[in-house]
Amino acid sequence: MSKEIKSRSEDYSQWYNDLVIKGGLADHSEVKGCMVIKPYGFALWEKMRDQLDKMFKDTGHVNAYFPLFIPKSFLSREAAHVEGFAKECAVVTHYRLMNDPNGGGVVVDPSAKLEEELIVRPTSETIIWNTYKDWIRSYRDLPLLINQWANVVRWEMRTRLFLRTTEFLWQEGHTAHATAVEAIAETRQMLDIYAEFAEEWMALPVIKGVKTPNERFAGAVDTYCIEALMQDGKALQAGTSHFLGQNFAKAFEVKFSDKNNQLEYVWATSWGVSTRLIGGLVMAHSDDDGLILPPRIAPTQVVIVPIYKGADRKEELDAKGRELAGLFKAAGISVKFDDNDNSRPGFKFAEYELKGVPVRIAMGLRDLDSNSVEVARRDTKEKKTVSLDGLPDYVKTLLSDIQQSMYNKAKAYRDSHITKADTMEEFERLLDEKGGFILAHWDGTAATEDAIKERTKATIRCIPLDNPAEEGKCILTGQPSSQRVLFARAY
Amino acid sequence: MSKEIKSRSEDYSQWYNDLVIKGGLADHSEVKGCMVIKPYGFALWEKMRDQLDKMFKDTGHVNAYFPLFIPKSFLSREAAHVEGFAKECAVVTHYRLMNDPNGGGVVVDPSAKLEEELIVRPTSETIIWNTYKDWIRSYRDLPLLINQWANVVRWEMRTRLFLRTTEFLWQEGHTAHATAVEAIAETRQMLDIYAEFAEEWMALPVIKGVKTPNERFAGAVDTYCIEALMQDGKALQAGTSHFLGQNFAKAFEVKFSDKNNQLEYVWATSWGVSTRLIGGLVMAHSDDDGLILPPRIAPTQVVIVPIYKGADRKEELDAKGRELAGLFKAAGISVKFDDNDNSRPGFKFAEYELKGVPVRIAMGLRDLDSNSVEVARRDTKEKKTVSLDGLPDYVKTLLSDIQQSMYNKAKAYRDSHITKADTMEEFERLLDEKGGFILAHWDGTAATEDAIKERTKATIRCIPLDNPAEEGKCILTGQPSSQRVLFARAY
Repeated sequence: MSKEIKSRSEDYSQWYNDLVIKGGLADHSEVKGCMVIKPYGFALWEKMRDQLDKMFKDTGHVNAYFPLFIPKSFLSREAAHVEGFAKECAVVTHYRLMNDPNGGGVVVDPSAKLEEELIVRPTSETIIWNTYKDWIRSYRDLPLLINQWANVVRWEMRTRLFLRTTEFLWQEGHTAHATAVEAIAETRQMLDIYAEFAEEWMALPVIKGVKTPNERFAGAVDTYCIEALMQDGKALQAGTSHFLGQNFAKAFEVKFSDKNNQLEYVWATSWGVSTRLIGGLVMAHSDDDGLILPPRIAPTQVVIVPIYKGADRKEELDAKGRELAGLFKAAGISVKFDDNDNSRPGFKFAEYELKGVPVRIAMGLRDLDSNSVEVARRDTKEKKTVSLDGLPDYVKTLLSDIQQSMYNKAKAYRDSHITKADTMEEFERLLDEKGGFILAHWDGTAATEDAIKERTKATIRCIPLDNPAEEGKCILTGQPSSQRVLFARAY
Repeated sequence: MSKEIKSRSEDYSQWYNDLVIKGGLADHSEVKGCMVIKPYGFALWEKMRDQLDKMFKDTGHVNAYFPLFIPKSFLSREAAHVEGFAKECAVVTHYRLMNDPNGGGVVVDPSAKLEEELIVRPTSETIIWNTYKDWIRSYRDLPLLINQWANVVRWEMRTRLFLRTTEFLWQEGHTAHATAVEAIAETRQMLDIYAEFAEEWMALPVIKGVKTPNERFAGAVDTYCIEALMQDGKALQAGTSHFLGQNFAKAFEVKFSDKNNQLEYVWATSWGVSTRLIGGLVMAHSDDDGLILPPRIAPTQVVIVPIYKGADRKEELDAKGRELAGLFKAAGISVKFDDNDNSRPGFKFAEYELKGVPVRIAMGLRDLDSNSVEVARRDTKEKKTVSLDGLPDYVKTLLSDIQQSMYNKAKAYRDSHITKADTMEEFERLLDEKGGFILAHWDGTAATEDAIKERTKATIRCIPLDNPAEEGKCILTGQPSSQRVLFARAY
């Protein structure tokens, strides 16, 4: 191996960091909690972003852009919202630096103090609803279906690359509707889109559910979420969609005149996914040799590595490699022909394994003579000799097999890690020994939820949408319960 | 007209604002100097961004993402840079708010003061070169060809939508090279790409040139630029490409070992265009009825407006309209079929004129019967009855005619507004009476440049790249000069 990677069993957390950094996805920066998204990681984000953007547009949404800064007073307008978001944020207090009169370099110019501090957006409901006030007059202006791709900042004390960073990239949809029914339908539609994206594009099976009041977005009436399971048995919230009721419309006085000319408050939703998804992708699929990327979002789907024997027939190999790359491109497959003759094939193999390129094609002189190549898939590491005739079709099918097989594998793991527990003892044993999701009865109170979290570090990830009714007793208090809810330790 | 627009002759500045706001491109926000980019404006930016992004990638660049925040001390590392950028910037001093113990809402938590202030990036050379320090070891790591799409903040006292806003969106390329020759070639290549984009996509003729030391980017050895002319005779800097020499490599200690194993400082470039381009687009092409967008970047190239006669044959009209829209889409033309029957055709015509949709197709019952439609082009307002047979091909050709004709018109205006002046008197008279670019002799000193600016508000936009040598005398000082340079009043 060219770069040392900790194994999962040795140190799961270090394994993750090694993959992210050595796999070329991201790096720490010198700004505390902020990461640099490296070119390979950003190419992956672009693939994810472009697909999500297409799904948003196909369902009638348009993009716009709202200011980075939020006046401090805006945050206070919605009572729950300010409690949730005002605590950890970047505060701009001045708008100028000056040369230190005492020669200490540049310092903040005390005379350039803002009258009202500006907050770097942790989320944009307030600034957007303050704008919607001017855009919405009548039912004819509704629905308003707007999305924004942006950077946001939440001051985090403990950060991890992609999973929890002070600044991150995300999209935030903010829609306005004439009725609650319509807004709820939108909330659910976007949840479905997130689930579809996670499962069909990221090969990541998710459970759709609704959050308990404790875990709700600050300012929402209901928060829906998709929850995924990582290989260490911890859950990861992969996306949320909020029904905001009329809370923000009331906070920012956004009313519309309905068909009967009555003034009504507007109904709202918001929904978002972020670069955190990349962390989930890494943790769900990769192995001790590196990343394993699903073909549908891999920046490079196929790499062709020529096996040179010195200068012997090098031109012939290169010509064949380039021809093959051209055929792949024409078939809509993203491909790299690696003709760099400074590194040895073994080094390249390890590098592309580390980077999770789904299919590797090796081609030597013997292959040239037999009109075949060696095709290796990254996920199972299976190798096969395949004829050059019809190779693009073969690889196309292989890519879609890999996509499906990655999903199946993740789903089998996830399904085998949903366990029922009926006592606290069983619950705690499962958490410590097996991990994964635990279905257990809960008495429906925030106090019990907090007590369980305090004792076990497990939280209620969601109440699954298709949850069956089942009479039972709360594992902590023994109080009656009408359904099991989904617990897990989570990222 | 549905929305009142000031005419250019009445109030050019108000005309511009009306077009931007009423045309649906952008709006003021309640955060001083920050704008909201509205969906139509953002769709335009997406078209521009996607094309530029393609041109960057076709020339070997990749995207990445660096932190929004820059530690204050980083700015000071490069002496010229800090002078240029530290003066007007957003300074983050705290990372938490708290409830006011005196009940005054949320206030800054004084205990959450940052040890070192963070600056919201006004440009990213410093944070990026601080990162490159870790990425570059050897000549094998070079060139590094990275671009970033991002928001940046420069605290502006006087702002104008798109043209000068506190926050704006842009791309900034930051490349690292082993030799000065290579870095200069990159600088020039990107200038050429900007010029190609402006001329072929925005239909905006530009003059390529190099800035005088006075107008150089803070920290650059040389700044190249493209300069465009607006309809009021003022110039607009539409893009810049900087050769940074080894300035940032020295400031951040970025060295590489060359092929002879010698440690050398790395050579740098940076280059950027921003949402400012949209302001230039509006000012260069539009008329008193609204925007005129070049077909290659118009979010919607064709709108089809059915002319209903009540319910009479409405279904037939709608079916035809949708069929037509389908044909356009299949031909790669972006199209909207506006079947909204709440607004009258006249209102729709005015609305699409305001929004600058290049081609409008009107279709009534008589057209149905005669198998034809009325095709109107936005730029010249010419209308023509055209057969439905082969209509997509006809429109495709028309769109490319419009693109070319918009460029020709802007170029004819620009070319007729490049005038030579040989005395200060002539220079000032031209500025006041004709506007546009003025070619005049200058003695090459910053003092003279400043004096001319002070007296006339005109600046040296650039020294054109293909500038002919010509002996002459400085219009202000009478000192000898070897070439004319390009002056203008500018945005």
